[in-house]
Amino acid sequence: MSDFYETSIRVRYAETDQMGVVYYANYLVWFEVGRVETFRQMGFSYKEMEQVDDSYVVVAEASCRYRRPAFYDDQILIRTRVTESRSRTLRFAYEILREPSGELLATGETLHVICDAQNRPKSLPEKYRKYFPLTPREDAAARA
Amino acid sequence: MSDFYETSIRVRYAETDQMGVVYYANYLVWFEVGRVETFRQMGFSYKEMEQVDDSYVVVAEASCRYRRPAFYDDQILIRTRVTESRSRTLRFAYEILREPSGELLATGETLHVICDAQNRPKSLPEKYRKYFPLTPREDAAARA
Amino acid sequence: MSDFYETSIRVRYAETDQMGVVYYANYLVWFEVGRVETFRQMGFSYKEMEQVDDSYVVVAEASCRYRRPAFYDDQILIRTRVTESRSRTLRFAYEILREPSGELLATGETLHVICDAQNRPKSLPEKYRKYFPLTPREDAAARA
Amino acid sequence: MSDFYETSIRVRYAETDQMGVVYYANYLVWFEVGRVETFRQMGFSYKEMEQVDDSYVVVAEASCRYRRPAFYDDQILIRTRVTESRSRTLRFAYEILREPSGELLATGETLHVICDAQNRPKSLPEKYRKYFPLTPREDAAARA
Repeated sequence: MSDFYETSIRVRYAETDQMGVVYYANYLVWFEVGRVETFRQMGFSYKEMEQVDDSYVVVAEASCRYRRPAFYDDQILIRTRVTESRSRTLRFAYEILREPSGELLATGETLHVICDAQNRPKSLPEKYRKYFPLTPREDAAARA
Repeated sequence: MSDFYETSIRVRYAETDQMGVVYYANYLVWFEVGRVETFRQMGFSYKEMEQVDDSYVVVAEASCRYRRPAFYDDQILIRTRVTESRSRTLRFAYEILREPSGELLATGETLHVICDAQNRPKSLPEKYRKYFPLTPREDAAARA
Repeated sequence: MSDFYETSIRVRYAETDQMGVVYYANYLVWFEVGRVETFRQMGFSYKEMEQVDDSYVVVAEASCRYRRPAFYDDQILIRTRVTESRSRTLRFAYEILREPSGELLATGETLHVICDAQNRPKSLPEKYRKYFPLTPREDAAARA
Repeated sequence: MSDFYETSIRVRYAETDQMGVVYYANYLVWFEVGRVETFRQMGFSYKEMEQVDDSYVVVAEASCRYRRPAFYDDQILIRTRVTESRSRTLRFAYEILREPSGELLATGETLHVICDAQNRPKSLPEKYRKYFPLTPREDAAARA
């Protein structure tokens, strides 16, 4: 399991709904921001991964647990880490916090399959493996 | 567990991303459309539930499993059903299909807490109970 | 100037903001829905125009005048018409109304350039010209 | 006319569409980000303006001219300035640039009416007037 990578965003008016809080689907947008910035902090660009290496990190599963509402103009900290790396799949976990209080607003998880531009599963290109060392199988057993 | 309630939408250009498919967060928007139309088909308006009865169906958990991509201009069938009704919570399950082929594109689930405008949990008002008969406890046991 | 083409949508919760009204950028999404449904009612599919004829209706200008707010769950009528057809450009006008009252909520306009997949301007393919007869030049003079 | 206030954002995957560029309605979201950050840099919080002073900056008109596409992961500079301040209205102009090249991607304008929570027009509260000095009438004449 990797360390957490962190990135900050400010809640946009567009992201609120008439309940006066952030609309629930937008947390998945924030997860995506967290993934992309994680990749950048690791040392590579997801844009290049798509364009140069024909490798798309396609989402297969997503989940979110909402604990406290996020409000307009809140400073949000997105914490992302890699929880599982397989030959063709990557799993991420997320924490969404309000700053500066550090209140935990939501947690989530996504599972992804590496695909080519035709949406066919493929192995993660070797050049990216250093960023995503294979999760030992005994960990997988421990999870089960 | 209730029957499925169905509603149809057309995929908007705005809902696609540069992978050429519907962006993953938009399925949660579709789930919300499915819930609201389910309420309307059951016989009440969610708008009124908020405004007249100070009862908000606040999301606590959401998950989606993506099986096949949805494309721009696809005719989408959203199938929604109530899978659990408790005093203060409601659980829904969703199926997203492409029409007319009927291919299953995604499945999902959401859990909600009934809250007042101040985001405090409350019981579902009695007038709505007929739409959401309490799930027998033995069902809950069977689920576990 | 063409007749108006009409399509109806229901305001989604996701489209509202914390002011309790539809967020202003979403009217441009509705304009796009209006254009696509106009094309379908005219007799062709915009999806096919992109995929088969390598012709993209790329937006160059957009404007909207907001008169009354749209609310969650409102039934919205989108009225769209073609106001100018040139060799490489198309112009549309829109009216957004609340049903059944018919209140005018917003009006807008968009200007588009026909482009290929590499974003290079091109003439509208001949097969689509019947849907978009060239606007007479005297009309253009009258506009000026 | 005020100076330009600047803020930077990164293009999100969610903001692209299947043309491989940023979907046109999202520029209006960026304009809103520009306005809010302008207010913050001027010295006040729009959130507080709504909550404490019951003053909403309601959009009445918006327009955008799209010059070059914005792409996924682009670093975007949003430049915002106040172009007109009246008793009850504010007008803003925007420039959207790609960094670090400085290419101009889009320009736009919005007109707003100050309203209370019931959507009734009101004068800008006196405490905010220092940030928005009244535009001299001769300027207005020069504009016409």
